Amino acid sequence: MDYGKISLKRHKELKGKIEVAAKAKIKSLEDLAVFYTPGVAEVSRQIAKDRAKSWDYTNRSNSVAVISDGSAVLGLGNIGAEAAQPVMAGKALLMKEFAGIDAYPIVLATQDTEEIIKTVKYLAPNFGAINLEDISAPRCFEIEERLQDLGIPVMHDDQHGTAVVVLAGLINATKLVGKKLENCKIVIVGAGAAGTAIALMLAHYTKDKADICAVDRQGIVCSIEDKLKRKICKATNCKTISGGLDRAIIGADIFIGVSAPNILKQPHIKKMAKDPIVFAMANPIPEIMPDDAESAGAKIVATGRSDFKNQVNNVLAFPGIFRGALDAKVTKITTEMLVAAAEALARSVKNPMVDKILPSPLERLVVKNISRAVKAQAQKEKVIRI
Amino acid sequence: MDYGKISLKRHKELKGKIEVAAKAKIKSLEDLAVFYTPGVAEVSRQIAKDRAKSWDYTNRSNSVAVISDGSAVLGLGNIGAEAAQPVMAGKALLMKEFAGIDAYPIVLATQDTEEIIKTVKYLAPNFGAINLEDISAPRCFEIEERLQDLGIPVMHDDQHGTAVVVLAGLINATKLVGKKLENCKIVIVGAGAAGTAIALMLAHYTKDKADICAVDRQGIVCSIEDKLKRKICKATNCKTISGGLDRAIIGADIFIGVSAPNILKQPHIKKMAKDPIVFAMANPIPEIMPDDAESAGAKIVATGRSDFKNQVNNVLAFPGIFRGALDAKVTKITTEMLVAAAEALARSVKNPMVDKILPSPLERLVVKNISRAVKAQAQKEKVIRI
Repeated sequence: MDYGKISLKRHKELKGKIEVAAKAKIKSLEDLAVFYTPGVAEVSRQIAKDRAKSWDYTNRSNSVAVISDGSAVLGLGNIGAEAAQPVMAGKALLMKEFAGIDAYPIVLATQDTEEIIKTVKYLAPNFGAINLEDISAPRCFEIEERLQDLGIPVMHDDQHGTAVVVLAGLINATKLVGKKLENCKIVIVGAGAAGTAIALMLAHYTKDKADICAVDRQGIVCSIEDKLKRKICKATNCKTISGGLDRAIIGADIFIGVSAPNILKQPHIKKMAKDPIVFAMANPIPEIMPDDAESAGAKIVATGRSDFKNQVNNVLAFPGIFRGALDAKVTKITTEMLVAAAEALARSVKNPMVDKILPSPLERLVVKNISRAVKAQAQKEKVIRI
Repeated sequence: MDYGKISLKRHKELKGKIEVAAKAKIKSLEDLAVFYTPGVAEVSRQIAKDRAKSWDYTNRSNSVAVISDGSAVLGLGNIGAEAAQPVMAGKALLMKEFAGIDAYPIVLATQDTEEIIKTVKYLAPNFGAINLEDISAPRCFEIEERLQDLGIPVMHDDQHGTAVVVLAGLINATKLVGKKLENCKIVIVGAGAAGTAIALMLAHYTKDKADICAVDRQGIVCSIEDKLKRKICKATNCKTISGGLDRAIIGADIFIGVSAPNILKQPHIKKMAKDPIVFAMANPIPEIMPDDAESAGAKIVATGRSDFKNQVNNVLAFPGIFRGALDAKVTKITTEMLVAAAEALARSVKNPMVDKILPSPLERLVVKNISRAVKAQAQKEKVIRI
């Protein structure tokens, strides 16, 4: 089915896909006096006395901003603010439909790191959390890091949402092939936002025991001196080897692709360890097609696509993570909360099988499980708003 | 009735008063593929090719941002971002309820003129128009002026919305007392955002024929050298007189107060010309109470309050002005459009009477009349988006 064509048609008919709705109706002059002047002045007066009251008297506690500069959108690259808007509105739609969150798509007509950081700070009083989205690496790292003390959670979903879903998938996949993740050799191809976050998450989860090797267009990433690659090198331990994918893939238990179409060949898979796990998540064309991967010996194959089994899709994670973060009133989303989210997501598949390592995004239980897990973890940590 | 108390209660129960709603439902994996990945990529691709397509494929053409820095809110003054939010959300609610507009309340945690201007520019690609709100003078003048070439309308409602409603009220009031506005002597007390805009609007409307005198706390405003007052002095012609309200009010046909409680006394009204018109719009306590004004001889009295007759309320204007501006696809809102809006608002009262110079905000016809008038005027001017 040509989803692009249908999507264009539906977006034009509907004029986008979200709108603002009134929670209060204005049917009388009294309604006007209660929700606008003069009544609203008292609400403003109370918040002026104590800013924390904004959480009680406004929709802030259920509001998330989905903010992008349009610099790294889907498979499309740097397409700018206007063109990125439908993706942000899509995330806002899913936040509402899956988790009841009021999310505001906000694209920014600047790609300057400092300006983006300032703008997010200026916008913060409106929201309970910020979902950064589709901002290119390495700017996304700095922008997210420098906003961690804003007082509300700021999470770049391309990094952490992806890492959560990949970890969840790998928890189930490794169990199915009878391996422990911490004993695995893992090759990650693509050292951008997603690849970096996946590497860091897997290193954290396995307490640096897993043997993680990152590969990008220039070959095996091994230079901690490289400013752009310093972050991913903290998670990888392939400093002693050099070469490319051909070298890295030898004996690997797990291949994780967040890179480019068709870069993984059947001979690569044949060089992997027993029962290879292949996550080929380039979109829309994966690093290897599932049929080809399986016929070369891959035991478990996942992609980013909805028309193949085992779809690794951020929508499995972000609605539940933000629901949990809002419910728990956290001031930041920690790595342990993300781990809790990944474990809850993995648990949401009742009987994991090689062609069902992740649940369907439509399963209502997913958001519930993840949000509860995030909330429970938050209560163990001192990151709750008072 | 204690609207403040009821307002607090209702805001807490509802958690604010607006929310985000889905226009498209996600009930199947196909819906997900159409409105999110992979389908949405085609929508983004089309907009990347031609940014103007954002008007067709997103909700931009029906979206307005209500932006404030919280520096001059209602009668409350500089209460900051969080405390200003309920007022902005109130305007958003009224935009939806009265004009079907999707308005996003956005308060900013900065009161720096340059930062506000930049932030509005960064946010522009999301919206079809910008409603600046509750920004203190003289910053509001510079901020609005410097954003006029943004490509979408930017209107500071405290200035122009107020001026439109005041002009509409005066059109009907002067007719009722058998005077022509251009022959009137008008005293405006309060030389902030609203006072300045009213003065400029009345000078424009009467082709500088009306005798307009502005008074502020320091007395009659007469110095074009005063940076803060330069703007209002362009509209006033009382440079030759000095003194205070006592002097200015002698022989005035019209008093317009956008200042402070109880500053207009009965002896003042007795010094005015025959059939005085008194707009005492300080909120919540007017410059003179209507009963006192009338017993001193005022023929027509208007206030900003909903519990007195002749309420001068911006809600009579802004929903229709923005509806018209969006429908006409204007790139800016011109003074002539505002005049057209005021005349349409005045016309919306079928049989003007001394205690009915303006319509009720609940009359559906008001938005229709104003938006049509704005649209018709826009089509005469070269300010339409192509």
